[in-house]
Amino acid sequence: MKQIYIIGMGPGKYEQMTVEAIKKIKESDIVIGYTVYTELIKDIWPDKECMSTPMTKEYERCVLAFEEANKGKTVAMVCSGDAGVYGLTGLMLSIAPDYKEVAVSTIAGVTAAISGAAIIGAPLIHDFAVISLSDLLTPWEKIERRLECAAIGDFCICLYNPGSKKRADYLQKACEILLKYKNEKTPCAIAKNIGRDGEGYTIYSLLELKDIKVGMFETVFIGNSMTKVIDNKMVTPRGYSNE
Amino acid sequence: MKQIYIIGMGPGKYEQMTVEAIKKIKESDIVIGYTVYTELIKDIWPDKECMSTPMTKEYERCVLAFEEANKGKTVAMVCSGDAGVYGLTGLMLSIAPDYKEVAVSTIAGVTAAISGAAIIGAPLIHDFAVISLSDLLTPWEKIERRLECAAIGDFCICLYNPGSKKRADYLQKACEILLKYKNEKTPCAIAKNIGRDGEGYTIYSLLELKDIKVGMFETVFIGNSMTKVIDNKMVTPRGYSNE
Repeated sequence: MKQIYIIGMGPGKYEQMTVEAIKKIKESDIVIGYTVYTELIKDIWPDKECMSTPMTKEYERCVLAFEEANKGKTVAMVCSGDAGVYGLTGLMLSIAPDYKEVAVSTIAGVTAAISGAAIIGAPLIHDFAVISLSDLLTPWEKIERRLECAAIGDFCICLYNPGSKKRADYLQKACEILLKYKNEKTPCAIAKNIGRDGEGYTIYSLLELKDIKVGMFETVFIGNSMTKVIDNKMVTPRGYSNE
Repeated sequence: MKQIYIIGMGPGKYEQMTVEAIKKIKESDIVIGYTVYTELIKDIWPDKECMSTPMTKEYERCVLAFEEANKGKTVAMVCSGDAGVYGLTGLMLSIAPDYKEVAVSTIAGVTAAISGAAIIGAPLIHDFAVISLSDLLTPWEKIERRLECAAIGDFCICLYNPGSKKRADYLQKACEILLKYKNEKTPCAIAKNIGRDGEGYTIYSLLELKDIKVGMFETVFIGNSMTKVIDNKMVTPRGYSNE
């Protein structure tokens, strides 16, 4: 059986990859991914054959992976975090029926909600919602609805793709929706450059968060009604009883 | 500075741990955790000093970790999945101010939502909510409200602690709430024994899921309005446009 591994590399450092992810990359004949991740692979394994396609050509990249596998190569398709969270696993599995002789396996990785939370403290200890603010493939009205529902349900919230040059005011728009239902003092945080140079985080209130400009490499965390700031860490309790 | 590492071990297999988690366990003088995880540690590192406390004594276990660190030992506190998702990081950080000379660092791991999704296909590719059905520390009304909000917002949903002997009908109650807002044909799946012997999954419709009995070692996935079953995998698309 021909084989493709879809591999979540975690936030970016070698140490944050799982043993299995490393093993499968080593076993693969070729690594396919965005340039930023294949460059990381080249740093670790300089002799590994790599191919990359531009950021917007996801479908083409998936087909490329199947075509390379069809030639008999074991293919590692790498992505940041986990491939099953806003990643390419779904697209790969919808193309897979056209390549019956290729097996596809997913190797789970640490997604930004989890790696960011570990830096910030314990923001996602209790029920949480993960929402992307990118409206490239999702109508903005749908995103607004989800923000409302997450706020009404008192979920902890983690926002992916909170902003970019084109979407400079999306975090502000999101905060305005959340502020209708959540206390303006709700602890929030932004984690940036997780697992990369310049890793760090800043704590804000929800009201302050509204006016912060965020970029591509940032992940936003918003507390529930029980979240506190303790020693500059964002901490959500395990429940609603006294501990 | 004295040191505690709170370490997410992932679903259970050595290969599913991160390189950093392994490194920090090796560096630690003592490992503290539930018996099931310290036994896993003993299988890998037979000479490692381990201590375990019963399932319900979380507060005592946290204090024990700080007391051992205070003696000058480097402590690894281990837990399954990731310690920041229904884990002990929050409780540890709220006790930390009493032990100013002890540094606490969290090493992120692969939580069951992520490791389970990798087995099942791509159920959480788009916005998702993680909800625990355990009402030990959370009023059931709050859980019901969150299920409703997640359904109205058309989130993909991952349920932790979906059932136990005492809570035999909780999944049924949850499905009844979801069925008010979601199509009864919505693809769902149960992953069981992730990373352990007997690992596997089964696909259901939401209507079928209602009548399934689940246990402690199972994680439940419920699709959004776009989720499909492709070659017996549960696949959520990346958005609402045609791909």
